[in-house]
Amino acid sequence: MKPVYIAGAGMTQFGRSEWTLMKLASVASLAALHHANLGEIPVDGVVVANMGAARVNRQTALGSALVDQLALYPATAESVENGPASGASAFKVGVQAIASGMADVVLVTGVERMRVVDGLEGTDFVASLSHPEAEYIYGVTLPALAGMFARLVMDKFGVERKHLAMVTIKNHENGAKNPYAHLQQTVTMEGILTLPEATVNNPLIAEPLHLFDCCPVSDGAASLVLVSEDVAAKLGGPKVRVAGIGQATDTHAVHEREDPTDLKSVRLAAGTAFDRAGLKPQDVDVVELHDAFTILEIAESEASGFFPRGEGHKALERGETRLDGALPINPSGGLKAKGHPVGATGVAQLVELVWQLRGECDARQVKDAKVAYACNFGGFGNNVVASVLQREA
Amino acid sequence: MKPVYIAGAGMTQFGRSEWTLMKLASVASLAALHHANLGEIPVDGVVVANMGAARVNRQTALGSALVDQLALYPATAESVENGPASGASAFKVGVQAIASGMADVVLVTGVERMRVVDGLEGTDFVASLSHPEAEYIYGVTLPALAGMFARLVMDKFGVERKHLAMVTIKNHENGAKNPYAHLQQTVTMEGILTLPEATVNNPLIAEPLHLFDCCPVSDGAASLVLVSEDVAAKLGGPKVRVAGIGQATDTHAVHEREDPTDLKSVRLAAGTAFDRAGLKPQDVDVVELHDAFTILEIAESEASGFFPRGEGHKALERGETRLDGALPINPSGGLKAKGHPVGATGVAQLVELVWQLRGECDARQVKDAKVAYACNFGGFGNNVVASVLQREA
Repeated sequence: MKPVYIAGAGMTQFGRSEWTLMKLASVASLAALHHANLGEIPVDGVVVANMGAARVNRQTALGSALVDQLALYPATAESVENGPASGASAFKVGVQAIASGMADVVLVTGVERMRVVDGLEGTDFVASLSHPEAEYIYGVTLPALAGMFARLVMDKFGVERKHLAMVTIKNHENGAKNPYAHLQQTVTMEGILTLPEATVNNPLIAEPLHLFDCCPVSDGAASLVLVSEDVAAKLGGPKVRVAGIGQATDTHAVHEREDPTDLKSVRLAAGTAFDRAGLKPQDVDVVELHDAFTILEIAESEASGFFPRGEGHKALERGETRLDGALPINPSGGLKAKGHPVGATGVAQLVELVWQLRGECDARQVKDAKVAYACNFGGFGNNVVASVLQREA
Repeated sequence: MKPVYIAGAGMTQFGRSEWTLMKLASVASLAALHHANLGEIPVDGVVVANMGAARVNRQTALGSALVDQLALYPATAESVENGPASGASAFKVGVQAIASGMADVVLVTGVERMRVVDGLEGTDFVASLSHPEAEYIYGVTLPALAGMFARLVMDKFGVERKHLAMVTIKNHENGAKNPYAHLQQTVTMEGILTLPEATVNNPLIAEPLHLFDCCPVSDGAASLVLVSEDVAAKLGGPKVRVAGIGQATDTHAVHEREDPTDLKSVRLAAGTAFDRAGLKPQDVDVVELHDAFTILEIAESEASGFFPRGEGHKALERGETRLDGALPINPSGGLKAKGHPVGATGVAQLVELVWQLRGECDARQVKDAKVAYACNFGGFGNNVVASVLQREA
C-alpha cells in the first residue's frame, strides 16, 4: 500500500445553521484546500460523507454537486454512507484511492444538515440505520439503544451517573476552548446532577441517560485533503501520515450479540488499525472518541485498548483523559460539545487530530502530540472505523 | 496498482418486486458468491451501491445490513452513491480496496427498490440528483432533460425518431433473450411508431421522447465478487480482469455546458479507462451502455469512441450494434429492456459483461468476446464511470 498523507484539514462551525448543504460542504472544503495550499496541483477525486440528504434535504449525488460548487471538474466524485461512521468510511475510501495509485489528491468532505421542519425527523432518520425488521419497526431510537447499553455497563462495572457527568463536564470544558464547537459553555456536576434545578435542566431522555449525556443535533461540515507521498513531498510543511485504518462489523440487531456490553467491532477495528500502523495504544498521545452518548466514551476508551475493560470510568475519575492528563480524550469537545452532524463527524474527528498533530489547537492543544487515534462508531456499534495518524519529522 | 479480477457475478430478476431491499441485495449477493465459489476464502469487504433507500425505503447503512444478512462479520462495509452511476462508483471503490492491498475479496452489490406508494415519487427522487437551485426547484426531471438533449442531438446530426425506435427494437429483442430482464417482449417499428395504435401505446413523455424511448422503473439487485490476483489464482477457472476504470465529472446544471450535446464526461471517462487498460475502442467485442433514454445509447456510442460524432445512428441503422453485428451494444437488453433499478444498474452492466466474457449468456451470447466496455452515466452526464474488462487466457 502506497503511503497516504493528510495535507489539509478544515471545518465549519458546528451548530444550527441556515446554510444549505452545499454551502456547508463548500466552506469546509475550501478551508481544507486553503490549509493544504496545493497551488497548481489538481484535485483528482472528491468523496462526500453524508447519511441523510436523500431524505432530509431531498438532494442526492452530493459528490458531483460539490465538484461543481468548487469547479473541480473532471475530478471523480461519489458519496459514501455508513451511518454515523460515514465520515471515517469516506476517509478510508479516499485513502484507498491514493493507496491504489489511481489518485494523488483526494478531497474528503463530510456534511450533514439535520435541521428539519418536524422536530422528530432527526431522531427518526438516524434510527433508519437500525435493523429494519428486528429494531426499527418497533420504534427503536439511538438514545433508546444507548440507554439500554448504559444500564448494562453501569450494572456490570460499577459505573455511576457521576462518571457519565464527568465525561460531559470534561468535554464541555474542552468544547469551550474550541471555536468550531456547537456548545461552548462549561457545565458543573452540581448544575447537571445534584442541584434541584438539574431535574429540569437535565431531564431524562432514555433511562439512565439524561439530556447532558446526549450529543446535540447539529448541522456542519468537515474536510480533509489527502495526498500521495510525491505530492506531500512537493508541498513541504508538516507531515501527517495515515498510519493505519481498521474497520469491523458486528450483528445488526444489538440483542443478537453474545455480550451487548462488549464493543467487539471497536476492539477489532482498533486492533487492525494499530497492527497496520505498527503501533500500540500506549504510543498514542491524543484521542477522539465517538461520544454520541457519554457512556460510549468510557466503553470505547476500553475497547480501543487504552484501559482494561471496566476501568475506563476509573481513569476518567483520576483525570487521565483530561486535556492535561496522560491521555487526553476528545480535546475538541467530542460529539457531546462539538456537536454531531452525522455524516461530518468522522471527518471532523480527524480534522481535530490533524490540527493537534500540527500544533494548531491553541488553548486546547495537547503538548507534543505525535500519534493520534480516532474511533468513529457506526450503527449502534455494528460498523466501526478506527484510524491512527502519525506526525512525521 | 495491484491487479483486480472479477470472480463472480449474479443478479436478481429485474422488475416490480415484492421483496424487501435486503432480500433483493442478499439474493443477488448469494448468486455472485455462488458463482465465485470462494470456498473457505473470507469476504473482506462489502460495498453497496444505492441511491434512494434513505428516502424511498427509510433505511440507511445498507452495507452493515447486508453484512448482517449474509453473516459476513467482521467484513468492512459501506454504501456508495453517485446517482444512476452509483453501481460503477461502488465497483471502483471495491477495486481500489483490493488495488491498495487493504482487501483481497470484496463483494459489490447494487440494489434499488423504487416502488413507492405515490407513483410520482420515483421520478421525483431521481430528479434529486439535479442542481438543487438551478434545476430541481424549477421542477426538472430526468425525462425532461433527456427530451431537451434529444431534440438538440436530433436537429444537429439528423437523427430521426425511427433511429430512436431502432434502439428500442434492438434492446427489446436482446431483452427477450435475457431471463433477468424486466421487459422480455419484442416490439416492432409499426407497433411503436407508425400504426394508429402507436399514439396510444407509445405516448409522448417529454418531446421528442415517447414511452418506448424511456427505461422502465424497476426494482432489483446485481452483485460482483472482486478478488486479488492471489485469490484469483487459487480459484482457478475463467479469469476476468478489471483492465481499466475511468471517471469524469462535468457541470452540474446541463445548461452551463458549452455544448450540451457533447457528452464530455463520457469522452474523458472512456479515454482514461482505455488508456489505463492499454486498449482502444476498436479492441472491444461487447458493450453495455446507459440507455436510460434511447438517445443516450446513440450519443454514448459516439462519445465512448466507437463511432465518429454524429454517426452513431448510422451504425445503428446498418445493424452494427445488433447481437450479430460487428459491435453488439446492450446484449442484456440495456436499461431500456432489462430495467433500471438505479443503484443496481452500473453493477448489472458489469454482471452482463462478466457473463459475456465467460461465455455464459446462452441465446444472447456474443461470440468469442474477450474485451468488454461499460458506460454508467450519472446525473445527466455530470458524473460518468467507464470500465474496461478483459478475459485472460
